[in-house]
Amino acid sequence: MAASLRELLRAPTGPVSLTDLDPRGKPHAPGDKDATRAAMVADGEQLATLQERLYAEGFRGGRRRVLLVLQGMDTSGKGGVIRHVVGAVNPQGVSIAGFKKPTEAELRHHFLWRVRRQVPEPGMLGVFDRSHYEDVLIGRVRALAAPEVIEKRYAEINRFEQQQTDAGVTIVKCFLHISHWEQKERLLARLDDHAKQWKFEPGDIDERALWPEYQRAYETAVERTNTDVAPWYVIPSDRKWYRNWAIGRILRETLEDLDPRLPEPTYDVEEQRLRLLDEGNSH
Amino acid sequence: MAASLRELLRAPTGPVSLTDLDPRGKPHAPGDKDATRAAMVADGEQLATLQERLYAEGFRGGRRRVLLVLQGMDTSGKGGVIRHVVGAVNPQGVSIAGFKKPTEAELRHHFLWRVRRQVPEPGMLGVFDRSHYEDVLIGRVRALAAPEVIEKRYAEINRFEQQQTDAGVTIVKCFLHISHWEQKERLLARLDDHAKQWKFEPGDIDERALWPEYQRAYETAVERTNTDVAPWYVIPSDRKWYRNWAIGRILRETLEDLDPRLPEPTYDVEEQRLRLLDEGNSH
Repeated sequence: MAASLRELLRAPTGPVSLTDLDPRGKPHAPGDKDATRAAMVADGEQLATLQERLYAEGFRGGRRRVLLVLQGMDTSGKGGVIRHVVGAVNPQGVSIAGFKKPTEAELRHHFLWRVRRQVPEPGMLGVFDRSHYEDVLIGRVRALAAPEVIEKRYAEINRFEQQQTDAGVTIVKCFLHISHWEQKERLLARLDDHAKQWKFEPGDIDERALWPEYQRAYETAVERTNTDVAPWYVIPSDRKWYRNWAIGRILRETLEDLDPRLPEPTYDVEEQRLRLLDEGNSH
Repeated sequence: MAASLRELLRAPTGPVSLTDLDPRGKPHAPGDKDATRAAMVADGEQLATLQERLYAEGFRGGRRRVLLVLQGMDTSGKGGVIRHVVGAVNPQGVSIAGFKKPTEAELRHHFLWRVRRQVPEPGMLGVFDRSHYEDVLIGRVRALAAPEVIEKRYAEINRFEQQQTDAGVTIVKCFLHISHWEQKERLLARLDDHAKQWKFEPGDIDERALWPEYQRAYETAVERTNTDVAPWYVIPSDRKWYRNWAIGRILRETLEDLDPRLPEPTYDVEEQRLRLLDEGNSH
């Protein structure tokens, strides 16, 4: 394949119309469901190797790290991506932050306050399960702040993301794009399975009733924050296997670009080997 | 097998002599290396299922959580346990905290200050990669605090662990017991492999020279903090496959004892299903 998956799934610059982007698509999928899953496992191993190098770099003073931002409507599969894609990486190198409804304490701060505290440390693959974008999504749809306050946030987000990039963070933002119909199927599946019923809340259906408003809020957010330093990818997510493969591949491409290298030893290897070999076996 | 692995590997009450505990042992191993690894995979799947239930419980207001404390000499395999055992669990339900040399800021606080901040949230499987025990291990061997200060810490640790237990934390403390000889082999292996050289520091050999002092410090720590609420397990760790299986099995037994249950829905399932089915397909 000629183009990278990142080029292919990068959100359009300029006006964004989500209805023009097919949530059931599978561009560049390496094959059917089984073949794609197999490719995802192979990508996962490569990702684990690359992340280990990034971790080593961070351990020895490097500043680079990756932040995967996951956004999407309820049931779009943020949790599934964490389990199946991020789960392929050594958990020691992963830090996951979930952003639920802000607490009273968090609400007394600027909306980016709680986000800054969760930016991954050097060497880590950080994941945001929801993020600062909630403050221009539900924040906008539910009018949780004055319109002019929300309006200002897009620029604040771009500034924040630029700062993080300057500090060594590579930001990858994925919108998990599902159809209105698919969400209904998945909510019904949650209701039908006791093992999933705990994930459901009646309020999920109230949010679903605002689907068009949320889609518009996503379009606006993507339009206004789809920068080159922190690009948005729109991931067709009606097919879970495609969604997982695509995000794994985008992460792999991102890490390959970073090309982290194992640090060279700052000590004399032979000298240290002799120190070990020469010690008495007295204990 | 009659006894649980927890009973079998529980550190002795009363005086502890690590030289009497075989680091190459493999008590209750389900078979040879391959069979034991296969058993570990099966335990890992069970562990993932149980942890998901614990997570669900925490998501719906439960307070319970598990904290795995990993301690052991350099190269004893703390990182390997995280990768191979903890890696079997959905990363969304895992929180890992590493305790390195304290920073200047941390040193201005009580030694438990930085530890309290990392206690896992309800529903989580927390892992401490090193822990507050460093303050009675390297703290003691390197005399990083006055003897009477260190002496007081054992009781402070027991009190802290009791508090956490009261708050819903089940604490599992594992000492990864390796032989002096095995450590040498592993340090040499690090020096021989470019992919591992970054993990080595010349100071590791200086610490190794204090092996008997560290073993005594471990014996004292285990003797004085091996409480029923926060028991110590001594894990024979010269064989990596045994070590991984044993800790996975101990975690599995611990979660099975907790017996986390999927929360019952607090809504009327049928009513919500009808709400979904009755909505117009207008979007």
